[in-house]
Amino acid sequence: MFSLTVRDHVMIAHSFQGEVFGPAQRLHGATFVVDATFHRAELDADNIVVDIGLATVQLKEVLDAFNYRNLDELPEFKGVNTSTEFLARHIADRIAERIHDGKLGELARGIAEIEVTLRESHVAWAGYRRAL
Amino acid sequence: MFSLTVRDHVMIAHSFQGEVFGPAQRLHGATFVVDATFHRAELDADNIVVDIGLATVQLKEVLDAFNYRNLDELPEFKGVNTSTEFLARHIADRIAERIHDGKLGELARGIAEIEVTLRESHVAWAGYRRAL
Amino acid sequence: MFSLTVRDHVMIAHSFQGEVFGPAQRLHGATFVVDATFHRAELDADNIVVDIGLATVQLKEVLDAFNYRNLDELPEFKGVNTSTEFLARHIADRIAERIHDGKLGELARGIAEIEVTLRESHVAWAGYRRAL
Amino acid sequence: MFSLTVRDHVMIAHSFQGEVFGPAQRLHGATFVVDATFHRAELDADNIVVDIGLATVQLKEVLDAFNYRNLDELPEFKGVNTSTEFLARHIADRIAERIHDGKLGELARGIAEIEVTLRESHVAWAGYRRAL
Amino acid sequence: MFSLTVRDHVMIAHSFQGEVFGPAQRLHGATFVVDATFHRAELDADNIVVDIGLATVQLKEVLDAFNYRNLDELPEFKGVNTSTEFLARHIADRIAERIHDGKLGELARGIAEIEVTLRESHVAWAGYRRAL
Amino acid sequence: MFSLTVRDHVMIAHSFQGEVFGPAQRLHGATFVVDATFHRAELDADNIVVDIGLATVQLKEVLDAFNYRNLDELPEFKGVNTSTEFLARHIADRIAERIHDGKLGELARGIAEIEVTLRESHVAWAGYRRAL
Repeated sequence: MFSLTVRDHVMIAHSFQGEVFGPAQRLHGATFVVDATFHRAELDADNIVVDIGLATVQLKEVLDAFNYRNLDELPEFKGVNTSTEFLARHIADRIAERIHDGKLGELARGIAEIEVTLRESHVAWAGYRRAL
Repeated sequence: MFSLTVRDHVMIAHSFQGEVFGPAQRLHGATFVVDATFHRAELDADNIVVDIGLATVQLKEVLDAFNYRNLDELPEFKGVNTSTEFLARHIADRIAERIHDGKLGELARGIAEIEVTLRESHVAWAGYRRAL
Repeated sequence: MFSLTVRDHVMIAHSFQGEVFGPAQRLHGATFVVDATFHRAELDADNIVVDIGLATVQLKEVLDAFNYRNLDELPEFKGVNTSTEFLARHIADRIAERIHDGKLGELARGIAEIEVTLRESHVAWAGYRRAL
Repeated sequence: MFSLTVRDHVMIAHSFQGEVFGPAQRLHGATFVVDATFHRAELDADNIVVDIGLATVQLKEVLDAFNYRNLDELPEFKGVNTSTEFLARHIADRIAERIHDGKLGELARGIAEIEVTLRESHVAWAGYRRAL
Repeated sequence: MFSLTVRDHVMIAHSFQGEVFGPAQRLHGATFVVDATFHRAELDADNIVVDIGLATVQLKEVLDAFNYRNLDELPEFKGVNTSTEFLARHIADRIAERIHDGKLGELARGIAEIEVTLRESHVAWAGYRRAL
Repeated sequence: MFSLTVRDHVMIAHSFQGEVFGPAQRLHGATFVVDATFHRAELDADNIVVDIGLATVQLKEVLDAFNYRNLDELPEFKGVNTSTEFLARHIADRIAERIHDGKLGELARGIAEIEVTLRESHVAWAGYRRAL
């Protein structure tokens, strides 16, 4: 199984609901360094998993939708705990849609799985992995 | 599949038995930077894999049992080669016990797998992954 | 010249005033991975720059004052652009006060300079260095 | 499942064929930081996955075959797009052969899978994982 | 003294002249992860060292002049050993020119020093620091 | 001013004397990831600070003198707190001697300063900088 990963980042504000979150119930923020990994069984006709340039552009567009935002105020995240692991799935799902739409190239339809990891600090990170 | 990772470290002395270990048969030491990863199929009611705060505290307690120690002198490691990979399993097993004991919260019982990675230098690391 | 560095992190929300900041004028957030470095010409009587344990505790206390906060709402940052470089000086100044107060130990008074670096992502960081 | 990883690097020149590669169609180069991971179900008689020393030497020998080379001129890569993911498989296959040849020790025959990751920059990497 | 750093990378081919370089006399290549640091005594009117956005764009433009190139074939590097440390100075000098030209903003003229570090692998890097 | 850095590591056991060290008074150990930096005003005739190959070999030889050792038992460290900062100076001094002996090449005599940093974990490191 082959894989290819590209990295970008996003800087957001948000707050959490629930006692388990302690001081993180207050409005605070985070830089998430985001790694998007593409898995497939065989390389495509160009001998790659997916074009790094296209993958980078598409990841950036997905992140731009909420970069420099307060997630508490975005309609799509209303009433939701935008935890690191939740955001990992959100990003993976948006990338999957773009692959289905052909935005990562026709050959990218051969991708089998997507994995997204968000590093919130040097001591904590979370991820989500799904089939395409 | 979701995952969440927390990081801590431990500084120990030990020695190895067996020619394959060369100079590492002498009493020496290591800093292990320890990553504990929790995997589960679905997020819990708080939209998380496990509480980062609880996970961090429990990992630290597991490591405190042998932090700043000479492993050769601890009864539980008597006559054992405390290799990086062996210690990864040891730590994963201790964390699994704590999940079963409810120390990572009731909702943590939904965790499916635990993975522990010990980085012994910038050029070598080892890990162990098990079902809960 | 000797140096010793300890690392911690802080997660905050804030916004900036000024066209130069573009989308960062909106309320957003950041994780700052904070490195505090202590410089001195000679080691103290214990053969160290400063006790790592004390340095770690004091750095954490300095950061706790605004961890998980919206900086725009803290009186001390009212009307100020809390840029990464500005926060680096703020933290360095708070640590310097604590050294003068003896909170890093009597021997820490021999420290000559303090340097604080805040990493806001994998591609940008800022710092401030001052005499004690 | 246990794992052990060793890291080395290689510095090569190459070019790509195909419009998708844009400016990378020109002769350029890369440093690949190479991580070779060995997976196995149980530790061997020495309580390890594989000897770190042997693994390091064998990885280095595999990389030496094309270190400081222009891959476009090596017969084995003639007419091939030596993408990061392709090279990951190439290296994994060479290591697998060496395990079969006993060069990582007799006990290394118990290794179940090999995974090779090549980091081409701080924002992109690729890998390949195969059974032994 | 304040500092701000932005990071980018460049992928080039080149070769060296001189026995000291051993196998690096052959045409090979490198990824250089490039950190450009700006130092100044006081923050500007916006409370920053320099705008991160502008700094990032200007660094990228400087690198684009030789990204995905064989340095041996570029007129400006003819007959020169394009060592990591030499390239660090080259990049620092190009950035300095752009500051003097006002491309990093009028306020950037207050920058006192520029420092450029090129990481060629996980075990070697080089840098150059100069006054503006 | 130019700089060049090479990285290696060492794994040792030791203990500390003095209440300030708390649990580190017990025999424990550490991996030190060691960065040796060479500074000089102008590049040499080969357009470099120092040969990376020679620098790497000499750093390794300096570290081999106490790699995989219990520092408490080495005559040269008898009765000394072998703190991270102390070891940084020890290594810098040994490298300086080797430069004076010509072991880093005749041209290395132009080196102005040496800086050694020892990373003992992901959250603490220490260093020493001296003139040649």
